[in-house]
Amino acid sequence: MSKELVFGHQKPDTDTIAAAMAFSYYQNQLGYETEAVALGEVNDETKFALNKFGMQAPRVVETVANEVDAVMLVDHNEPAQSVADLDQVTVTHLIDHHRLNGFNTAQPLWATLRPYGCVSTIITELFQDAHIDIPQNLAGMMLSAIISDTLLLKSPTTTDHDGEAVKHLAKVAGVDYEEYGLQMLKAGTNLAAKSDEA
Amino acid sequence: MSKELVFGHQKPDTDTIAAAMAFSYYQNQLGYETEAVALGEVNDETKFALNKFGMQAPRVVETVANEVDAVMLVDHNEPAQSVADLDQVTVTHLIDHHRLNGFNTAQPLWATLRPYGCVSTIITELFQDAHIDIPQNLAGMMLSAIISDTLLLKSPTTTDHDGEAVKHLAKVAGVDYEEYGLQMLKAGTNLAAKSDEA
Ligand SMILES: [Mn+2]
Ligand SMILES: [Mn+2]
Ligand SMILES: [Mn+2]
Ligand SMILES: [Mn+2]
Repeated sequence: MSKELVFGHQKPDTDTIAAAMAFSYYQNQLGYETEAVALGEVNDETKFALNKFGMQAPRVVETVANEVDAVMLVDHNEPAQSVADLDQVTVTHLIDHHRLNGFNTAQPLWATLRPYGCVSTIITELFQDAHIDIPQNLAGMMLSAIISDTLLLKSPTTTDHDGEAVKHLAKVAGVDYEEYGLQMLKAGTNLAAKSDEA
Repeated sequence: MSKELVFGHQKPDTDTIAAAMAFSYYQNQLGYETEAVALGEVNDETKFALNKFGMQAPRVVETVANEVDAVMLVDHNEPAQSVADLDQVTVTHLIDHHRLNGFNTAQPLWATLRPYGCVSTIITELFQDAHIDIPQNLAGMMLSAIISDTLLLKSPTTTDHDGEAVKHLAKVAGVDYEEYGLQMLKAGTNLAAKSDEA
């Protein structure tokens, strides 16, 4: 099996970045060779989370077919939200929590779609089902993603699965998720950005 | 949650019937109210399996929107292979091993797609992950489905997952899968049908 790239949607949010990092790590533990990449620069909220947990932003790519034959998608499935040359590679894996819209494949694929508040919640369950430990810093990123997508478990898309995952990840990451979550959400607002400059 | 119907494709094969029965049972164990139905009469091979394991063919339906608001699809996703009034109901769950082709949803859904030889293999793994026991007669039907879709694990689409599932299901069903499998595949051929008539 040759190397595959793992990435989320354009204009990446914290879930797209964290899910790509987490699913790449998960697949590498299973024996695949993968690398998490991003379709754009990370936003202020994601930067705050990466800094807090001591991790680097994934490499930004414009196209993928120049590097690989196959890719894994997270946090999106609509071709219009994906990499420009998606039609030139095979999607072998898809993990998403959005409606299916215009996503067709030439071959059967491995896909896990759940109507949860966040893809990082789905990936947390995949780790648990496979009895693979989540490293502390990665757990922090996945926690940040759930806090971001569910607005601290308060958005109408939040499910019990998201709540369970937050509790588990906060424990692994060693943070108070409510206190940290408010700081992170604040870092992602324009207000915070302006205050920083001030 | 109101009742949902679970069904496979038109011109049902053994996997479509067994997977609908198995996924309906699985969902009912999780607390949903579901019923397995079929989009046509079962074929000779499936009849042989149902008879062997003492089970009844699912009720045949022409449409579903007259009965339910929501459905679960197994063993297919192409609308052209599905029930005529699919566009009038919500698909809440999908379990399949075919390529995605023209399947779009208005809302996020629960879908597990795997590039395995048979949907009944995917459902076997769902039972195992959820620690739910498979009843003996249902295991026999799921075993029949894998034997049918993979031609006794010899088709090029066969994966290690299918082989593992066959071993597990044969044990639960209490049959020698090679001996039974040859009988079942023979029952599905025209030759066998003609011999029966003779
Ligand atoms: Mn996103
Ligand atoms: Mn998301
Ligand atoms: Mn079929
Ligand atoms: Mn099948």
